[in-house]
Amino acid sequence: MGGATTLDRTREENALAELNKLSSWGRWGAEDQLGALNLVTPDVVKKATTRVRRGEVIPLAGRISRFAPGLAGAPPSMHFMTRDGGDAAAAPDETPFQAAVDALVINYIHGTGTHIDALCHMWVDHRMYNDFSGNYVRSSGAARLGIEHVEGVVTRGVLLDVAASRGVSALAADDLVSDADLIAAEKAAGVTIEPGDAVVVRTGWLTTFKGDPVAWSRLQPGLGPSAGLFLAKRDVCMVGCDNIAVEAWGGPPANLLPTDPRAGLTNCLHIPLLRNLGIYLLELLDLERLAKAGGREFMLTLAPLLIEGGTGSPVNPLAVL
Amino acid sequence: MGGATTLDRTREENALAELNKLSSWGRWGAEDQLGALNLVTPDVVKKATTRVRRGEVIPLAGRISRFAPGLAGAPPSMHFMTRDGGDAAAAPDETPFQAAVDALVINYIHGTGTHIDALCHMWVDHRMYNDFSGNYVRSSGAARLGIEHVEGVVTRGVLLDVAASRGVSALAADDLVSDADLIAAEKAAGVTIEPGDAVVVRTGWLTTFKGDPVAWSRLQPGLGPSAGLFLAKRDVCMVGCDNIAVEAWGGPPANLLPTDPRAGLTNCLHIPLLRNLGIYLLELLDLERLAKAGGREFMLTLAPLLIEGGTGSPVNPLAVL
Amino acid sequence: MGGATTLDRTREENALAELNKLSSWGRWGAEDQLGALNLVTPDVVKKATTRVRRGEVIPLAGRISRFAPGLAGAPPSMHFMTRDGGDAAAAPDETPFQAAVDALVINYIHGTGTHIDALCHMWVDHRMYNDFSGNYVRSSGAARLGIEHVEGVVTRGVLLDVAASRGVSALAADDLVSDADLIAAEKAAGVTIEPGDAVVVRTGWLTTFKGDPVAWSRLQPGLGPSAGLFLAKRDVCMVGCDNIAVEAWGGPPANLLPTDPRAGLTNCLHIPLLRNLGIYLLELLDLERLAKAGGREFMLTLAPLLIEGGTGSPVNPLAVL
Amino acid sequence: MGGATTLDRTREENALAELNKLSSWGRWGAEDQLGALNLVTPDVVKKATTRVRRGEVIPLAGRISRFAPGLAGAPPSMHFMTRDGGDAAAAPDETPFQAAVDALVINYIHGTGTHIDALCHMWVDHRMYNDFSGNYVRSSGAARLGIEHVEGVVTRGVLLDVAASRGVSALAADDLVSDADLIAAEKAAGVTIEPGDAVVVRTGWLTTFKGDPVAWSRLQPGLGPSAGLFLAKRDVCMVGCDNIAVEAWGGPPANLLPTDPRAGLTNCLHIPLLRNLGIYLLELLDLERLAKAGGREFMLTLAPLLIEGGTGSPVNPLAVL
Repeated sequence: MGGATTLDRTREENALAELNKLSSWGRWGAEDQLGALNLVTPDVVKKATTRVRRGEVIPLAGRISRFAPGLAGAPPSMHFMTRDGGDAAAAPDETPFQAAVDALVINYIHGTGTHIDALCHMWVDHRMYNDFSGNYVRSSGAARLGIEHVEGVVTRGVLLDVAASRGVSALAADDLVSDADLIAAEKAAGVTIEPGDAVVVRTGWLTTFKGDPVAWSRLQPGLGPSAGLFLAKRDVCMVGCDNIAVEAWGGPPANLLPTDPRAGLTNCLHIPLLRNLGIYLLELLDLERLAKAGGREFMLTLAPLLIEGGTGSPVNPLAVL
Repeated sequence: MGGATTLDRTREENALAELNKLSSWGRWGAEDQLGALNLVTPDVVKKATTRVRRGEVIPLAGRISRFAPGLAGAPPSMHFMTRDGGDAAAAPDETPFQAAVDALVINYIHGTGTHIDALCHMWVDHRMYNDFSGNYVRSSGAARLGIEHVEGVVTRGVLLDVAASRGVSALAADDLVSDADLIAAEKAAGVTIEPGDAVVVRTGWLTTFKGDPVAWSRLQPGLGPSAGLFLAKRDVCMVGCDNIAVEAWGGPPANLLPTDPRAGLTNCLHIPLLRNLGIYLLELLDLERLAKAGGREFMLTLAPLLIEGGTGSPVNPLAVL
Repeated sequence: MGGATTLDRTREENALAELNKLSSWGRWGAEDQLGALNLVTPDVVKKATTRVRRGEVIPLAGRISRFAPGLAGAPPSMHFMTRDGGDAAAAPDETPFQAAVDALVINYIHGTGTHIDALCHMWVDHRMYNDFSGNYVRSSGAARLGIEHVEGVVTRGVLLDVAASRGVSALAADDLVSDADLIAAEKAAGVTIEPGDAVVVRTGWLTTFKGDPVAWSRLQPGLGPSAGLFLAKRDVCMVGCDNIAVEAWGGPPANLLPTDPRAGLTNCLHIPLLRNLGIYLLELLDLERLAKAGGREFMLTLAPLLIEGGTGSPVNPLAVL
Repeated sequence: MGGATTLDRTREENALAELNKLSSWGRWGAEDQLGALNLVTPDVVKKATTRVRRGEVIPLAGRISRFAPGLAGAPPSMHFMTRDGGDAAAAPDETPFQAAVDALVINYIHGTGTHIDALCHMWVDHRMYNDFSGNYVRSSGAARLGIEHVEGVVTRGVLLDVAASRGVSALAADDLVSDADLIAAEKAAGVTIEPGDAVVVRTGWLTTFKGDPVAWSRLQPGLGPSAGLFLAKRDVCMVGCDNIAVEAWGGPPANLLPTDPRAGLTNCLHIPLLRNLGIYLLELLDLERLAKAGGREFMLTLAPLLIEGGTGSPVNPLAVL
């Protein structure tokens, strides 16, 4: 790993200030619960389908298992077989046919496995996106801005391969992706990001997981304020990344290393992007196959489970080249 | 409800016998774990994208909640909030920001909620699709034919609206969809089913759910042998339906009403389609919006959660018109 | 079933008014979180051990399974094997030893299975037992009055077998246990209820479960106000019953049959007993073996799982005769 | 930590050989599923109650939470609130009363939290205790030797405080408790272990947990073969310890440190005690309060949840002094 650019603190701090002033509240009406997905108009959908040239379908989700990468301390997802071939082996003649059925316990949607954040996932001052009260979000689920409003997305996807344009296999744990990184990757991709695009940023970080969530998720490279500002100005509908939080991650406050050069610049995109601008976040993406396949622009499909009042959903976004 | 055609028992029995003789084992190689999805070639994918005319995205999944339609006795899926706006209301100044995170417990993937069956879901004689031993399927999951092999599907979808062509809102509980029904619906749709298509059949049954799984799932209308044979011959990759099992459902053997006119013709497509032919099954689809939107052919996308060794997955298939 | 006494509405209404005036708040100090278990002094514990004459241990819990009796609509508890003998049968030589490990998902502690209610389970006016704010109870659990404070109980148990003293196998669904019932059963038992006792009341209702929670839990016989008042005055630490709620149960308000003769007298002991008096409630007990064994007074042991911040716990109380 | 005795390998190896020859199969009949709990006769129960002198009840279970000590990699137990005071705070006037209900997901009974092993938990040669076939243990649970057979236990408990008799706060990770240790602790306790006793051995290891299961559970002190042999000869019904496995723990085979002086002597009591002799094992006990209270002999109560076919149960054993 390596290839870090010099962190321009002043530029990032200014970008954060500017980003925090942006808002989409009211832009799509006082009752809007869809946010930046309003940008995905029928024309955008239709145009997205024309990006398919090879007919190749690449999943952007990782495998769901107890051993998947996740946040330190996040309880893993569990998969239980309620009936399986072992039962048939133990009692071969008990039933005229054999079957396997199972159960899935996702103990922490936001902590492990590829997922999308709903607009009700995070907020400040007790107001969520578009000025909805946080009181709508209760034990029974979110009565506003739940993931069930994201019924399905088809739009153009763009891969910004920052690791590749930096010439590294993965960014370092304490690295920060800047707008300059995104511009370089955009140029390398030969595409221009447009309103309604879903942009996925590759840092290579997912490939560094060695089985230990604590070590792996302590600090993570990710987008800094200038990168967030860049994407906000391009009016994207969604930003994804192969790390835990899209943004540069410094762990919970108490965990931030005193020596982290990014102090004050980590963990700071959820509020401006998700809550202020209604831009969705896709986390723990696996972008390796897409990168290897040379995908730069593609049709992206996303179909959350329609969990009533869910604050997010495990997803398997597809990149169709 | 109503509109039942006269059940032609002889025709259905003959179809069942013929269907049970068909097999795709070896067709795509001795090691193939993908089954009929091999029919979805890059050309099929590309052609599917050309079916999108309006740019309208319609989810085919129902909502996930404790109250979703399901099999009698199937424990419902549960959604738990690990942190929510109520916590913030109870302690308004405790944190500088507010967040909501949650957990999802799918107690029975095959029993409730829109889902896809993996090829390891059901078998006979201790051999699964393509002659893989059922011993591969253990408590740790399916080491062969697990749902993670279905990485993502983009193909043409065709809606066969049998309820509409019969002129009823929903077929009766003890009704059976025949090949004649499918042919009539195909004609009404003005499309011709081709190899690699995903066919979804609307019976209207999902709309009859009144909150009581026991009453609702006792008997269900669905495809009979001749309908299965018809689709097998057309070389589809997948069959979906708005009932619990795609096939006409007579409940567990002991539950079959003595007066069910379909005796011997229910619960009989899983083995020939899934296990013998590698054709995937999509269950508990919500086809109402698609039908209302006039969707007949469309781009269908399907992206299972990549549950390692899973026997199926909750899914939200998208119909893109 | 049958044997109903004539319901004395006036007496019950008066008892309810009187009961609702009683309070133990402050009785054991302003910070007390233990409630009526303060009555179980070391002397009470020691005396309880002297009740053991035969050395017979009888569990008062029912079996935990998907099919256990529960509240209508309550998702059942699930038991999953993570590894089992079937795996060993499918791969006999894979490991040098065989093992079975499992998981338990209790989807709804208060809805199914024998359990104890913690003092934080129910309250009014946003104040819980001993004037603790309901705001202490959040998604992370109850910071006050959680079940972990009930570290373990050994006290005298007394069985009041109302079904037996009425001469029926089970009370009717719309029956109500009065103080007269308890006095008759106490007399039949030949014991006098004393401070710190745990009283379990048998209605026989658990034996009427036929597998259908909806039918079974709609209406249930149980304690009425005069019975609650009687026990409160005797200063018991705990009341248990073989029904869903200890008290006579009329279902959620909307479910109450217009013809239920108990209108206004059901579902009315949780607040006075649990919240006002700190008396614990034990629900869904299986009292059949105890009754058959002739147990009338005994040593009762109760050991909740120490779920941090739990509102209750599955338990297996033991009656030691 | 410290105070290690010199490990006598020859003595331990001989003890292991001798222990492995012992068996209780058939001792209590060919159909017996209770094992050494047969030793807890009514007389033993009655005598146990006479051990209570102070009337003090001490729980031996730790708290159940996401952060409880456990096996490396074991998914923690989860506690979810389905309704809580935060909901009431967010909508103060929505309901006439407030309530809190919850759910408990024990993802891995044997991996975290105080629990008892059922006799079906581990076996070799496909035969379990008393020659029952391992094929009885399937995805639906154990049809023989399940935890539901342990309906409730009241017997004499004896604390052997090895840490105290060694003069250390906790044994070292690679330490091994020998018969000499138990004899010294027995002498210090001033009691003589008798048939039917439940013996709990304190190593102090639980107190060394610092929040990291990986570091903590890698290697653990515990009983070695000579200690197991000693207890087997005394005909105890149950052995408990404040570590993960009662026995000295060297982790999964691959994890055993090459330098572990205990090579070959760890992880070796489950088969002889549980499977061959029907002696139950209690793991992850919290013995600190009991030790501080000076408890040496006491009445021990144990009441597993009656999980149908369970391979164990979370428990809260009580020591009553």
